Amino acid sequence: MRVEVVAIGTELLLGQITDTNSSWMGEHFAMAGIDSHFQVKVGDNQERMVSALRIALNRSDAVVCCGGLGPTQDDITREAIAEVMGVELVRRPEIVDRIRAMFESRGRVMAENNARQADVPVGATVIDQVRGTAPGLICPLTVDGVEKVIYAVPGVPYEMTDFMERVIIPDLQRRSGEQAVIRSRTLRTWGKAESTIAEMVAPRLDALDRPGAPAATIAFLASGIEGIKVRITAKAATDDAVRAVLDHEERELRAILGDLVFGVDDETMEVVVGALLAGRGLTLAVAESVTGGLVSSRLVAVPGASQWYRGAVVSYASQVKFDVLGVPEGPVVTGDAAAAMAAGVAERLGADVGLSLTGVAGPDTQEGQPVGTVFVGVSDARGTVVAEFKVPGDRERIRQFATISAVDFLRRHLLATSA
Amino acid sequence: MRVEVVAIGTELLLGQITDTNSSWMGEHFAMAGIDSHFQVKVGDNQERMVSALRIALNRSDAVVCCGGLGPTQDDITREAIAEVMGVELVRRPEIVDRIRAMFESRGRVMAENNARQADVPVGATVIDQVRGTAPGLICPLTVDGVEKVIYAVPGVPYEMTDFMERVIIPDLQRRSGEQAVIRSRTLRTWGKAESTIAEMVAPRLDALDRPGAPAATIAFLASGIEGIKVRITAKAATDDAVRAVLDHEERELRAILGDLVFGVDDETMEVVVGALLAGRGLTLAVAESVTGGLVSSRLVAVPGASQWYRGAVVSYASQVKFDVLGVPEGPVVTGDAAAAMAAGVAERLGADVGLSLTGVAGPDTQEGQPVGTVFVGVSDARGTVVAEFKVPGDRERIRQFATISAVDFLRRHLLATSA
Repeated sequence: MRVEVVAIGTELLLGQITDTNSSWMGEHFAMAGIDSHFQVKVGDNQERMVSALRIALNRSDAVVCCGGLGPTQDDITREAIAEVMGVELVRRPEIVDRIRAMFESRGRVMAENNARQADVPVGATVIDQVRGTAPGLICPLTVDGVEKVIYAVPGVPYEMTDFMERVIIPDLQRRSGEQAVIRSRTLRTWGKAESTIAEMVAPRLDALDRPGAPAATIAFLASGIEGIKVRITAKAATDDAVRAVLDHEERELRAILGDLVFGVDDETMEVVVGALLAGRGLTLAVAESVTGGLVSSRLVAVPGASQWYRGAVVSYASQVKFDVLGVPEGPVVTGDAAAAMAAGVAERLGADVGLSLTGVAGPDTQEGQPVGTVFVGVSDARGTVVAEFKVPGDRERIRQFATISAVDFLRRHLLATSA
Repeated sequence: MRVEVVAIGTELLLGQITDTNSSWMGEHFAMAGIDSHFQVKVGDNQERMVSALRIALNRSDAVVCCGGLGPTQDDITREAIAEVMGVELVRRPEIVDRIRAMFESRGRVMAENNARQADVPVGATVIDQVRGTAPGLICPLTVDGVEKVIYAVPGVPYEMTDFMERVIIPDLQRRSGEQAVIRSRTLRTWGKAESTIAEMVAPRLDALDRPGAPAATIAFLASGIEGIKVRITAKAATDDAVRAVLDHEERELRAILGDLVFGVDDETMEVVVGALLAGRGLTLAVAESVTGGLVSSRLVAVPGASQWYRGAVVSYASQVKFDVLGVPEGPVVTGDAAAAMAAGVAERLGADVGLSLTGVAGPDTQEGQPVGTVFVGVSDARGTVVAEFKVPGDRERIRQFATISAVDFLRRHLLATSA
């Protein structure tokens, strides 16, 4: 079973919108064990849409059309699919009624244009809409004597993902007869470069290439402020069997990578640190200058942060460090300043733990310190510790890497000082 | 002249990387007046790459291949292009020498694999590399008696953009014989929904459709924390003529949109407010809770922010509002609390102007206020003003919209109180 994505919309070709839908679909096809060899973008032009669909149907078993199901005259995906199927469009009154009811439930009147969204190619099945006004379509057809299928979903990501997860991916799996279960698990790391992580893991990659090894692959992905990801993908006959392979590979990788691994799957560094703080009953305050509020805004994004987060002082001007945080007057890009900031913010904001950052994001050096120098401090009841980091990149990347480095430093401190 | 993008890489199909290169190219083709009707993604598989290239060459005059020029065995774009051209690859010693010299200049030894990057199809022209090790390629070929061309560039965006801007787009323009100059200008707005902006501008769109109107188009793009963008694209014979059209359309749109327009092109809301503060010799401090540091981190990203920015207090816990900012104990999601926060942070951090935000990002209501309620305060020598906003979306979108709404409120306040 091979599926191909045809993303529709002139705004995609013009670069006004980046096509993230195809990426999402590609990832979810892979997770579902469905091959996908091509993805195509085409504008709102029926002749070219029909051509793209025909090429796709020649080389794939299924095509997902994304976009062009809206109410306006340039939304012609329904027409293009009907032309490829060689059938007419028929307006379904029950769909018109449902769209009208959706508008009325929001206190609005349906524009007559929206009735176009109830047009369905003869022979197609409708996928009920839950999140928007456009229904999805399942359009079976025969190409050179082979049964194939075109699916149509709206281009709004929030609507698209619903149709894909609820109906289309299960339908593709059913058609493919794929019995194997394919699952991924991502270990998130921080502290070493991607190439170093890859070198460390190379022996395990070699072992997986040998005959009789578990059906698993390992891939690496540098993800900026999200860390370096190491993704295990495994295939097995059952859910239990695939989980056993993933568990085994996770143990192998953790034995190699140790405390470089900070989280799994969706666990960000902030989520992990939040859980450590909450588990110890500790509260946190942050003092930051070089990162300007980025550390704090990441921490606040963690669900339940109000349990353990007090707040922050962004001491961008040196005088704020002296006046509000009690840093002694003098140089501010030093370990001593970081220590005083961490202790000062914990005291001022009434937190158990203070985390601080001071550094140089550039473009110019500051106090003789080169661009990329960052001092991080952690202060708690046992005292204050400081570390110096050299982070690469331009201003924005320095801030991102400084943020994850600082929160990772706090993580290691909390782990090392656990009761 | 029609050009097509073929983006190469299995990681694109698997959704491990979102293909932003194609979007960038699409936008720049449009700006250069070059048509582009299709974009294709294909994995690192020579047979499928060759098939995608042949289909592209049948319907377009030029193809830009992006990716697959790296040093490893799965980088086979050179091989695929040579197969389509029906020629051999020849290793060019002078390119090997240049790659070796690039490694040596960074204190590293060239891996032998990198010599593959010096392989060039017979008949192709090399585009010298400036930013990476892989050179670009210009590969002329004849399809059904028509002269066409394949360009190859690396998938690293920083390298790709250099090849495109320096050589490939000018080469495409030369081949197309396009003499006209096409330029865009973007007006950034905040304060009304995209549909409202579109309604307001509709008469001008109609005027541009009439015979004899300037050769200009107007498009709308909702860009979250960056505001709603209104893009004018104009075409004329010379640089001066196209600038005159853009100036005229900008005047027309500003007459319609008034102070909804906060900036042009790359001017973010923070840049505009920073310039207003610097021009008035004022300093700013921020007190934020619901946005958790996001407002502050945006302000710090403005070049030269240290001239006018003092810092922030993120008063996530109510007690921090009371203790550090001097907010009277009581409800904290109120206009009075916002006013006290703004005055308190200006006083504590020694700033001329205080900006504050307090609100409810959800998922739960707080103090009986619904999710999406945000109070913004501005305090300066003349007193304190407060506004209430209702912003839509989930937690993350509420924080983004609250941030731009608050900084826009400060912008309008500064404009209204100008001497």
